[in-house]
Amino acid sequence: MPVANLFDDLPDRAEAELFTAILDRPGLRIERIVSTGQTTPENEPYDQDHDEWVLVLKGAARLWLDGRGETDLKPGDHLFIPARCRHRVVWTAMGEPTVWLAVHFG
Amino acid sequence: MPVANLFDDLPDRAEAELFTAILDRPGLRIERIVSTGQTTPENEPYDQDHDEWVLVLKGAARLWLDGRGETDLKPGDHLFIPARCRHRVVWTAMGEPTVWLAVHFG
Repeated sequence: MPVANLFDDLPDRAEAELFTAILDRPGLRIERIVSTGQTTPENEPYDQDHDEWVLVLKGAARLWLDGRGETDLKPGDHLFIPARCRHRVVWTAMGEPTVWLAVHFG
Repeated sequence: MPVANLFDDLPDRAEAELFTAILDRPGLRIERIVSTGQTTPENEPYDQDHDEWVLVLKGAARLWLDGRGETDLKPGDHLFIPARCRHRVVWTAMGEPTVWLAVHFG
Protein backbone atom coordinates (compact mmCIF):
# COMPACT_ATOMS: atom_id res chain seq x y z
CA MET A 1 0.00 0.00 0.00
CA PRO A 2 1.52 3.36 -0.97
CA VAL A 3 2.16 5.85 1.80
CA ALA A 4 2.98 9.55 1.65
CA ASN A 5 6.54 10.65 2.39
CA LEU A 6 7.61 14.11 3.53
CA PHE A 7 10.78 13.91 1.45
CA ASP A 8 8.94 13.32 -1.83
CA ASP A 9 8.89 16.04 -4.47
CA LEU A 10 11.54 18.25 -2.92
CA PRO A 11 12.58 21.14 -5.14
CA ASP A 12 16.34 21.71 -5.48
CA ARG A 13 15.80 25.40 -5.84
CA ALA A 14 12.54 27.30 -5.78
CA GLU A 15 11.55 30.95 -6.03
CA ALA A 16 9.78 30.86 -2.70
CA GLU A 17 9.36 28.59 0.29
CA LEU A 18 6.99 25.72 -0.43
CA PHE A 19 4.13 25.16 2.04
CA THR A 20 2.17 21.90 1.91
CA ALA A 21 -0.73 21.17 4.25
CA ILE A 22 -0.50 17.67 5.68
CA LEU A 23 -3.51 17.92 7.96
CA ASP A 24 -5.90 20.81 8.48
CA ARG A 25 -8.47 20.82 11.27
CA PRO A 26 -10.09 23.55 13.36
CA GLY A 27 -7.37 24.52 15.83
CA LEU A 28 -4.70 22.27 14.29
CA ARG A 29 -2.68 22.52 11.12
CA ILE A 30 0.30 20.33 10.30
CA GLU A 31 2.35 21.52 7.36
CA ARG A 32 5.56 20.74 5.57
CA ILE A 33 7.73 23.71 4.67
CA VAL A 34 10.59 23.40 2.21
CA SER A 35 13.19 26.17 2.17
CA THR A 36 15.90 26.40 -0.46
CA GLY A 37 17.90 29.36 0.77
CA GLN A 38 14.97 31.67 1.53
CA THR A 39 14.79 33.78 4.65
CA THR A 40 12.12 35.93 6.27
CA PRO A 41 12.54 39.64 5.44
CA GLU A 42 14.04 41.40 8.47
CA ASN A 43 11.21 43.91 8.69
CA GLU A 44 8.47 41.30 8.27
CA PRO A 45 8.86 38.74 11.06
CA TYR A 46 6.12 36.20 11.66
CA ASP A 47 3.78 37.37 14.42
CA GLN A 48 1.07 34.75 14.94
CA ASP A 49 -1.95 34.66 17.20
CA HIS A 50 -1.53 30.91 17.75
CA ASP A 51 1.17 28.64 19.14
CA GLU A 52 3.48 26.73 16.85
CA TRP A 53 5.83 23.78 17.27
CA VAL A 54 8.48 23.40 14.63
CA LEU A 55 10.87 20.55 13.80
CA VAL A 56 13.68 20.46 11.25
CA LEU A 57 13.64 17.15 9.33
CA LYS A 58 16.41 17.74 6.82
CA GLY A 59 18.90 20.48 5.91
CA ALA A 60 19.93 23.33 8.17
CA ALA A 61 18.51 26.67 9.25
CA ARG A 62 18.88 29.55 11.66
CA LEU A 63 15.84 30.96 13.41
CA TRP A 64 15.50 34.19 15.34
CA LEU A 65 12.97 34.46 18.15
CA ASP A 66 12.18 37.71 19.89
CA GLY A 67 13.69 37.70 23.38
CA ARG A 68 15.65 34.54 22.69
CA GLY A 69 18.00 35.43 19.89
CA GLU A 70 19.26 33.25 17.06
CA THR A 71 19.34 29.46 17.10
CA ASP A 72 21.02 27.11 14.64
CA LEU A 73 18.84 24.15 13.73
CA LYS A 74 19.81 20.76 12.35
CA PRO A 75 17.67 17.67 11.67
CA GLY A 76 15.82 16.57 14.81
CA ASP A 77 16.00 19.98 16.45
CA HIS A 78 12.63 21.31 17.57
CA LEU A 79 11.29 24.47 19.13
CA PHE A 80 8.07 25.76 20.63
CA ILE A 81 7.13 29.22 19.39
CA PRO A 82 4.45 30.81 21.57
CA ALA A 83 1.72 32.96 20.06
CA ARG A 84 2.80 36.58 19.61
CA CYS A 85 6.50 35.69 19.80
CA ARG A 86 7.89 37.38 16.72
CA HIS A 87 10.26 35.13 14.81
CA ARG A 88 11.97 34.87 11.49
CA VAL A 89 14.08 32.52 9.45
CA VAL A 90 17.53 34.15 9.34
CA TRP A 91 19.21 31.59 7.12
CA THR A 92 18.54 28.30 5.36
CA ALA A 93 21.00 26.02 3.57
CA MET A 94 21.58 26.71 -0.10
CA GLY A 95 22.99 23.37 -1.25
CA GLU A 96 20.07 21.16 -0.24
CA PRO A 97 16.42 21.62 0.62
CA THR A 98 15.62 22.28 4.26
CA VAL A 99 12.46 20.44 5.28
CA TRP A 100 10.47 21.65 8.30
CA LEU A 101 7.47 20.20 10.02
CA ALA A 102 5.28 22.89 11.57
CA VAL A 103 2.37 22.18 13.89
CA HIS A 104 0.11 25.20 14.35
CA PHE A 105 -2.43 24.99 17.12
CA GLY A 106 -4.57 26.85 19.63
CA MET B 1 21.32 28.71 22.73
CA PRO B 2 20.74 24.97 23.28
CA VAL B 3 17.78 23.38 21.54
CA ALA B 4 16.13 20.00 22.06
CA ASN B 5 16.74 17.28 19.47
CA LEU B 6 14.49 14.28 18.85
CA PHE B 7 17.51 12.06 18.19
CA ASP B 8 19.11 12.75 21.57
CA ASP B 9 19.27 9.99 24.17
CA LEU B 10 18.24 7.14 21.89
CA PRO B 11 18.53 3.73 23.54
CA ASP B 12 20.23 1.03 21.46
CA ARG B 13 18.09 -1.60 23.01
CA ALA B 14 15.38 -1.19 25.61
CA GLU B 15 12.97 -3.51 27.35
CA ALA B 16 9.97 -1.57 26.14
CA GLU B 17 9.11 1.20 23.72
CA LEU B 18 10.10 4.60 25.05
CA PHE B 19 7.41 7.32 25.05
CA THR B 20 8.45 10.94 25.60
CA ALA B 21 5.93 13.80 25.65
CA ILE B 22 7.12 16.74 23.60
CA LEU B 23 4.02 18.86 24.03
CA ASP B 24 0.85 18.14 25.99
CA ARG B 25 -2.23 20.33 25.72
CA PRO B 26 -5.95 19.71 26.01
CA GLY B 27 -6.84 18.02 22.74
CA LEU B 28 -3.24 17.82 21.47
CA ARG B 29 -0.33 15.65 22.43
CA ILE B 30 2.91 15.41 20.49
CA GLU B 31 5.15 12.55 21.50
CA ARG B 32 8.32 10.84 20.47
CA ILE B 33 8.25 7.06 20.44
CA VAL B 34 11.43 5.00 20.23
CA SER B 35 11.12 1.36 19.24
CA THR B 36 14.01 -1.08 19.39
CA GLY B 37 12.45 -4.20 17.94
CA GLN B 38 9.21 -4.10 19.93
CA THR B 39 5.85 -4.84 18.39
CA THR B 40 2.26 -4.55 19.55
CA PRO B 41 0.86 -7.87 20.81
CA GLU B 42 -1.42 -9.32 18.13
CA ASN B 43 -4.38 -9.56 20.49
CA GLU B 44 -3.91 -6.07 21.93
CA PRO B 45 -4.10 -3.61 19.04
CA TYR B 46 -4.34 0.10 19.77
CA ASP B 47 -7.96 1.24 19.66
CA GLN B 48 -8.08 4.97 20.42
CA ASP B 49 -10.98 7.37 20.79
CA HIS B 50 -8.97 10.17 19.16
CA ASP B 51 -7.30 10.73 15.81
CA GLU B 52 -3.56 10.29 15.40
CA TRP B 53 -1.02 11.33 12.82
CA VAL B 54 2.22 9.41 12.83
CA LEU B 55 5.56 10.03 11.10
CA VAL B 56 8.65 7.83 11.02
CA LEU B 57 11.80 9.92 11.57
CA LYS B 58 14.45 7.22 11.66
CA GLY B 59 14.69 3.44 11.38
CA ALA B 60 12.04 1.21 9.84
CA ALA B 61 8.72 -0.28 10.86
CA ARG B 62 5.65 -2.10 9.65
CA LEU B 63 2.22 -1.00 10.78
CA TRP B 64 -1.09 -2.82 10.46
CA LEU B 65 -4.31 -0.83 10.21
CA ASP B 66 -7.71 -2.45 10.35
CA GLY B 67 -9.27 -2.40 6.88
CA ARG B 68 -6.07 -1.26 5.26
CA GLY B 69 -3.60 -4.04 5.90
CA GLU B 70 0.13 -3.80 6.53
CA THR B 71 2.34 -0.90 5.48
CA ASP B 72 6.13 -0.69 5.51
CA LEU B 73 7.38 2.64 6.83
CA LYS B 74 10.72 4.35 6.29
CA PRO B 75 11.92 7.80 7.38
CA GLY B 76 9.60 10.51 6.10
CA ASP B 77 6.62 8.19 5.70
CA HIS B 78 3.50 9.39 7.47
CA LEU B 79 -0.01 8.12 8.07
CA PHE B 80 -3.29 9.37 9.46
CA ILE B 81 -4.92 6.91 11.85
CA PRO B 82 -8.57 7.79 12.50
CA ALA B 83 -10.13 7.31 15.91
CA ARG B 84 -11.39 3.76 16.45
CA CYS B 85 -9.24 2.37 13.65
CA ARG B 86 -7.50 -0.53 15.33
CA HIS B 87 -3.81 -0.65 14.54
CA ARG B 88 -0.65 -2.28 15.67
CA VAL B 89 3.08 -2.22 15.13
CA VAL B 90 3.87 -5.49 13.36
CA TRP B 91 7.62 -5.07 13.15
CA THR B 92 10.36 -2.56 14.00
CA ALA B 93 14.03 -2.67 13.07
CA MET B 94 16.34 -4.49 15.46
CA GLY B 95 19.70 -3.01 14.48
CA GLU B 96 18.91 0.64 15.12
CA PRO B 97 16.32 2.61 17.05
CA THR B 98 13.15 3.50 15.16
CA VAL B 99 12.01 7.01 16.05
CA TRP B 100 8.37 7.99 15.53
CA LEU B 101 6.63 11.29 15.93
CA ALA B 102 3.00 10.88 16.96
CA VAL B 103 0.47 13.71 17.08
CA HIS B 104 -2.66 12.77 19.01
CA PHE B 105 -5.58 15.13 18.68
CA GLY B 106 -9.34 15.56 18.82
